Amino acid sequence: MIKASICTIGDEILIGQVIDTNSSHLATALEENGILVARMVSFGDRREEIFHNLESELTENDIVITTGGLGPTKDDITKDVLAELSGSTGTYEHAGQLAIIRGILHGRGIDMLPNNRAQARVPDRCEVIPNYLGTAPIMVFRFDSARFGHPATLYALPGVPHEAVGAIPSVLEDIRNHFHLDNILHKNLMVYGIAESALSEKIAAWEDALPNDIHLSYLPNTLTGIRLRLSIYSGDADEEEERLGAKIEELKTLLGDLVYSDHDDTLEETVGRLLKHAGKTLSTAESCTGGEISHLITSVAGSSAYYLGSVISYAVSVKQSVLGVPARIIEQFGVVSSEVAAAMAEGVRQLTGSDYAVATTGLAGPAGDDASNPVGTVWIAVTGPLGTRTVKRLFRNDRKRNIERFSAASLDFLRKYLEEDLMNN
Amino acid sequence: MIKASICTIGDEILIGQVIDTNSSHLATALEENGILVARMVSFGDRREEIFHNLESELTENDIVITTGGLGPTKDDITKDVLAELSGSTGTYEHAGQLAIIRGILHGRGIDMLPNNRAQARVPDRCEVIPNYLGTAPIMVFRFDSARFGHPATLYALPGVPHEAVGAIPSVLEDIRNHFHLDNILHKNLMVYGIAESALSEKIAAWEDALPNDIHLSYLPNTLTGIRLRLSIYSGDADEEEERLGAKIEELKTLLGDLVYSDHDDTLEETVGRLLKHAGKTLSTAESCTGGEISHLITSVAGSSAYYLGSVISYAVSVKQSVLGVPARIIEQFGVVSSEVAAAMAEGVRQLTGSDYAVATTGLAGPAGDDASNPVGTVWIAVTGPLGTRTVKRLFRNDRKRNIERFSAASLDFLRKYLEEDLMNN
Repeated sequence: MIKASICTIGDEILIGQVIDTNSSHLATALEENGILVARMVSFGDRREEIFHNLESELTENDIVITTGGLGPTKDDITKDVLAELSGSTGTYEHAGQLAIIRGILHGRGIDMLPNNRAQARVPDRCEVIPNYLGTAPIMVFRFDSARFGHPATLYALPGVPHEAVGAIPSVLEDIRNHFHLDNILHKNLMVYGIAESALSEKIAAWEDALPNDIHLSYLPNTLTGIRLRLSIYSGDADEEEERLGAKIEELKTLLGDLVYSDHDDTLEETVGRLLKHAGKTLSTAESCTGGEISHLITSVAGSSAYYLGSVISYAVSVKQSVLGVPARIIEQFGVVSSEVAAAMAEGVRQLTGSDYAVATTGLAGPAGDDASNPVGTVWIAVTGPLGTRTVKRLFRNDRKRNIERFSAASLDFLRKYLEEDLMNN
Repeated sequence: MIKASICTIGDEILIGQVIDTNSSHLATALEENGILVARMVSFGDRREEIFHNLESELTENDIVITTGGLGPTKDDITKDVLAELSGSTGTYEHAGQLAIIRGILHGRGIDMLPNNRAQARVPDRCEVIPNYLGTAPIMVFRFDSARFGHPATLYALPGVPHEAVGAIPSVLEDIRNHFHLDNILHKNLMVYGIAESALSEKIAAWEDALPNDIHLSYLPNTLTGIRLRLSIYSGDADEEEERLGAKIEELKTLLGDLVYSDHDDTLEETVGRLLKHAGKTLSTAESCTGGEISHLITSVAGSSAYYLGSVISYAVSVKQSVLGVPARIIEQFGVVSSEVAAAMAEGVRQLTGSDYAVATTGLAGPAGDDASNPVGTVWIAVTGPLGTRTVKRLFRNDRKRNIERFSAASLDFLRKYLEEDLMNN
């Protein structure tokens, strides 16, 4: 198996100022292509550190991918170290990257300065993959066995997240052209509303009967549930695709409505797809989730096609005056109740004229248990052509996590309602 | 300077399933205490990998902090490796952690099983710092110079984020008791609405005149602006505190209303503090930001004291029917306009009866330039006792980033309005 190391260069990460998300995206892509990510390392951008760390990672791995250290103010040092490490004796200017730099600066209405132009200049022992999203090119250094005891390749990527992530397809293509990778097929099934241990028990017999060449992974995520991934090393791609597909169908039957997608989707994308396909609209009324559900829904590009809007009724007065929740219901059942959640959903549906509505009322914490509910309680309501339905959930996390989990649970409750209603039509 | 390495153990990070946030929190805490974080490393939880990596990090650093690898199903291997590495010959059960485990399980209504109890058992060469937030104890291994050529300490923390972050104060206390740390005083100033280069120019003369023993750091963050941090190695704490305080006052004068806080605050915390202190209330009306502003405001615990709620008017019909934005204004000026932003803010203020309101209307993208505005445009309005004010901003990011930056700009525009109004009272 091909071994890789992912390195981040720069002090911002070491002092905790920036959270490294590039490494995670790179790792996902490498792993899905059957490359073992053996280590991730972050180090500072001083010459000795870069040299020493890269030498050590190249000795132990087939592929080293670095991000960072290539900004216009800092690129000299990283590039110089890479030049030295690779035995480059000169530099050349890469015409393609220079044209990109010129285009980017022109778009910003800025004249090209010498330090901008210098970014297109690279050590002569490196090949360039153009970076269309920024000024620093992607540099590829290939080392033969004489240098580290085995052939090794270093890819130097910019640190800016969308540039680093944008470089992944070209880097993978280059890896495929220079290394022998097994073909791996993956298929995903997204599951929500069941703990990993219970899920594993539920499909134990099915899992035991899986052919040896099909591998099942559990990839849990607090917010999107569990991603079940089936993988196979493919000889004949069509045939293996069919075998995996059949297994996915079996799993779907076993798991029923716990499955919300057979793509690597989020709950908000799934809800959006259902609504868009049916040409229906949605509104939301949020109390304890404070706008997070609306934020998730509108984070999906194109959501204006089905999402009308929301009333965030944080204060009781807004529940009454804007959503029309009757005071007597609040008095009788309390703000955190099935009845208030239902009235909020119905209120916002009427107010906006949407086909469906979802509402939340609960206690995110940290303090504030009410007479009948502990912190972490949420009542969720969904209303639409099938009538109004409510459900109560209890989570025991901190405020931030509670808000996130309330929101995910609401989207999943809505998703089930939509599936049921739209299947009937 | 004391050197530290932060290690994460476990495959979840290496396959990109989980983004490591623990290392960033640990790094911030270490750096603020004058400890140099020289490297961060992630590796898998196989015996040889753990052993080899920890040995190497302990050889090169004074302090090694690990997170992860201590779950109830996986703790045997990490603990075994640590036992071997430390030359432990037996184990002991830590009574304090056992009591905590019992309490946690009791709270969940679960009986204690042997594998729960086993978590309180640790190698005999380690000291335990109790973990009150979870079942796995924090283990401290001290190595004398004979082992790695210098005294070295390893802290093994659980990987669950709130447990790892919760362990930081105790770990720092232990470090302070066993290493000589310089006392460092820091003071922060939070600045929004100016680029790093422009800020650096603006305070260049002041910075040049800083005494040699006072250090200035620029810590930029897309969402919260730039944190300016002044640090000093303190002899006499009171005296140095006073010197730093005087410098902070100079900076405040220089930077005027670009400064929004002299704590390490977010914009939403600052807005919340102003409102709470004045006993005033706020509502919001969001279009392109889709609930993100409301989400930020309500992420602050206690926000129900001043936040009444929001109308997310994603559809034009909701702007008209719920917020009462006149159709003729929309026709005449377009949805993305100063006039519509103002009408939205005034509409939600009237609807909720709040003292202040903030509203946004804009184009987050990716597609959808309108006749007069490119994607990335936002109009922000704030209304209150000083009347209604609007501002136009243009950002050129992807959808997610645009939404975040629109929201931060809105909170900052609101913050300036609040400061001006509340200062007059």
